[in-house]
Amino acid sequence: MAENKYVEPGAEFTRDTRYIATRITADGRDGYPVEAGRYRLVAARACPWANRALIVRRLLGLEDALSLGLCGPTHDERSWTFDLDPGGVDPVLGIPRLQDAYCARFPGYDRGITVPAVVDVPTGQVVTNDYAQLTLDLSTEWTQFHREGAPDLYPEPLRDEIDEVARVIYEDVNNGVYRCGFAGSQESYEEAFDRLFARLDWLEERLGAQRYLVGETITEADVRLFTTLVRFDAVYHGHFKCNRNRLVDFPALWAYARDLFRTPGFGDTVDFVQIKQHYYLVHTDINPTRIVPKGPDLSSWLTPHGREALGGRPFGDGTPPPPPSAAEVVPAAHTVTEPVS
Amino acid sequence: MAENKYVEPGAEFTRDTRYIATRITADGRDGYPVEAGRYRLVAARACPWANRALIVRRLLGLEDALSLGLCGPTHDERSWTFDLDPGGVDPVLGIPRLQDAYCARFPGYDRGITVPAVVDVPTGQVVTNDYAQLTLDLSTEWTQFHREGAPDLYPEPLRDEIDEVARVIYEDVNNGVYRCGFAGSQESYEEAFDRLFARLDWLEERLGAQRYLVGETITEADVRLFTTLVRFDAVYHGHFKCNRNRLVDFPALWAYARDLFRTPGFGDTVDFVQIKQHYYLVHTDINPTRIVPKGPDLSSWLTPHGREALGGRPFGDGTPPPPPSAAEVVPAAHTVTEPVS
Repeated sequence: MAENKYVEPGAEFTRDTRYIATRITADGRDGYPVEAGRYRLVAARACPWANRALIVRRLLGLEDALSLGLCGPTHDERSWTFDLDPGGVDPVLGIPRLQDAYCARFPGYDRGITVPAVVDVPTGQVVTNDYAQLTLDLSTEWTQFHREGAPDLYPEPLRDEIDEVARVIYEDVNNGVYRCGFAGSQESYEEAFDRLFARLDWLEERLGAQRYLVGETITEADVRLFTTLVRFDAVYHGHFKCNRNRLVDFPALWAYARDLFRTPGFGDTVDFVQIKQHYYLVHTDINPTRIVPKGPDLSSWLTPHGREALGGRPFGDGTPPPPPSAAEVVPAAHTVTEPVS
Repeated sequence: MAENKYVEPGAEFTRDTRYIATRITADGRDGYPVEAGRYRLVAARACPWANRALIVRRLLGLEDALSLGLCGPTHDERSWTFDLDPGGVDPVLGIPRLQDAYCARFPGYDRGITVPAVVDVPTGQVVTNDYAQLTLDLSTEWTQFHREGAPDLYPEPLRDEIDEVARVIYEDVNNGVYRCGFAGSQESYEEAFDRLFARLDWLEERLGAQRYLVGETITEADVRLFTTLVRFDAVYHGHFKCNRNRLVDFPALWAYARDLFRTPGFGDTVDFVQIKQHYYLVHTDINPTRIVPKGPDLSSWLTPHGREALGGRPFGDGTPPPPPSAAEVVPAAHTVTEPVS
């Protein structure tokens, strides 16, 4: 495996946020109308940004309309690969490397080959890798294919608040952990560390009094926070040196995370083994030995969280999704157990 | 700073245990009789092996008989240095590098330049760096210089038990954390990890029912366990991937460690800042960015431990040592506070 370079000495980490902004919409105004069976979501269970799309697709019941290709937890310098599939080739797209779908649309594409990506199956071209817009579009553009009982993850009256909460969570938490881990100087690390934990303190306070981040049901904001929290003690605490406290040291945040973990559509997308393999094997400039920690003990994810006492209706007027299909079940050895429905 | 190499890919970590076995004894049979003012203990607050000697010297009140030189927390490929001293030179030995004292005795000395080391001041030669024998000799050979009220850390009737407990603690815990951190393969890491935590489980059980490891007073065995425990969450948990649990997750072990931390002679030798600097700055082959984590939150070291309820008499028929001299006080900014006497 090629050396992967994430840390630039002396510099703070700056995420390349130039994504492919094409959208798949109900009216097809970008040339890509919502259609069942036409597109394939390419994700990796390891990746927190892709994990968002996996959760939203499950919550909304879009599995039949939007198929799923899964890359393995590790990747080389240029691309995620379909190394988990027989022959190392995605069975629908017929390609071994996600890069192939990017280059099919943009020959010589030289930005990051990222997951999640949505590929137009007939042409084999990536439509978008704009992960933040993607989940919102699944909620608002793909409505004709939502399952019966799908929750409204982005309710109109709450969008401003969801957007604002999601913005600070992105800056200080979702991307904040990376700014700790990939800091190229002690100063930039400590600045990111302080912002991260100040924000977690703020979230601890907010979630001490209410079950979900915005309103009384799960929303897009919860999805976005969850994917970082579920990786926190397993990876970010040690690997990214986010170690003022562990998640389990925040009573409300930790109970909130366990509540979501047990909510169908959340925990059943999480593969702790792939998560740990990804970070510890790929980032050779911060873990050159490529030893993957055996800990932490994850069994406490299943302890009672008691969050029902705060009220809230996880799915609002809707219902939980059914269990994942056999093809999409995370192996029991890769998680703490089947999340309880 | 030169690249330091601790991990040999594919191999398990094997400590070089070839120490200089010369002993300073009451009868002087190795040519080095116990004398007040003749020898200088060279230590580093960062190092757990040296920390043993710092604690025992304090407990026994040997400060006036055996002076102390302190190396800084980091060292280059070959030697610990006196970089904390004015001019970078030890004021008594007049040397900048501990290596100089090793080479004064053995020209071209090519084994590890380790702390603790005891130097014969008149000749400037290292007498011994055999850290395990050193603390026992402070207890049993230096008795004429023990302070009034010094505890017996190695009582005759308990020596077999102390030796046996110390042996398994060395293999599985003291050296076990290094075997995790410097493992050159996933297999050797996991083997060391399992042994470490099995032994901590065993210690948790043992210390749930008794205040100290052997007998009802502090002994050499407690000193040896303490120096690893006090570094566990600050360094070994993340840096060495000893992350099944943190120390704070073991109720009895954690209370035991806090009890000792508050016992005069133990916590007052601990410099958390130097400890973190040492590991994260020196081991560039496992932390190439040399970023030093800002966490963990150490304030919980001062929470009540409740171990008095188990009985025990820390100093037996003796008394606690007085506070350290001004010259040897760990700066407040480098610890959680002055341990309470």
